[in-house]
Amino acid sequence: MDEYAFFGPAARFHHIGLAMQSIRAVNPSCEVVVNKTQGVSMAFIRVNGVTVELLEPFGDDSPIARSVRDGVKLLHLCYEVPDLDAALRSCQPAGFHRVSRPVRVPEFENRRIVWVFSKHYGLIELVERDGDGVGGGE
Amino acid sequence: MDEYAFFGPAARFHHIGLAMQSIRAVNPSCEVVVNKTQGVSMAFIRVNGVTVELLEPFGDDSPIARSVRDGVKLLHLCYEVPDLDAALRSCQPAGFHRVSRPVRVPEFENRRIVWVFSKHYGLIELVERDGDGVGGGE
Repeated sequence: MDEYAFFGPAARFHHIGLAMQSIRAVNPSCEVVVNKTQGVSMAFIRVNGVTVELLEPFGDDSPIARSVRDGVKLLHLCYEVPDLDAALRSCQPAGFHRVSRPVRVPEFENRRIVWVFSKHYGLIELVERDGDGVGGGE
Repeated sequence: MDEYAFFGPAARFHHIGLAMQSIRAVNPSCEVVVNKTQGVSMAFIRVNGVTVELLEPFGDDSPIARSVRDGVKLLHLCYEVPDLDAALRSCQPAGFHRVSRPVRVPEFENRRIVWVFSKHYGLIELVERDGDGVGGGE
């Protein structure tokens, strides 16, 4: 089986993003966090060993509103990397391009994330392993 | 973080399905297998530790033709289970329903697979751990 390390040798799968109309309607006990910057409400669950990020549109211009309307469920894969900038450089030759600026996300342990896209592989979120300590970290 | 074992305690994540127009155009060295029954050509690759099933429409009425046209990439998650029938019973209370008959797939080590769907979690493939020995097995 062909193996690719698009995001650098130390990148590890972190989660898969799943869109839904209402997180609370499906998982009443979830801790739901609003991420206004990204226009989503979000919660993490584990399904048979896989971390799934539940995403619900927040606000009228949420980037996932259309996906939810069209019934698209699986939105992205997320990989955790030791160094966001190195990962960005690593995946460019394979045709991934940056579709957002790297931002620090207070709701995600104050880690830095960035979105990349490939017309072949779709949307990928990269998250840096360690935050700056303010938000907690691992 | 809430944990769910929808597909039974022994279910393990196996792969994620990704639609594309042409597997060979993206991964020339892949071993591509035509699965006429399911209307797809398929190949497996690993991307930073995650097994990804590349799926390309085969035939005019391929079930994934529309996804490819609409730019939908991530199609399904697949879990490997020890017993397909037990897994089907296990996931029903969570709202998953069977959308295909269990079939044995010669192109997939002659294992049995079945498709289930939940309006909240989307499309899931279940694959039985062991084939009947005819197709190889693990």
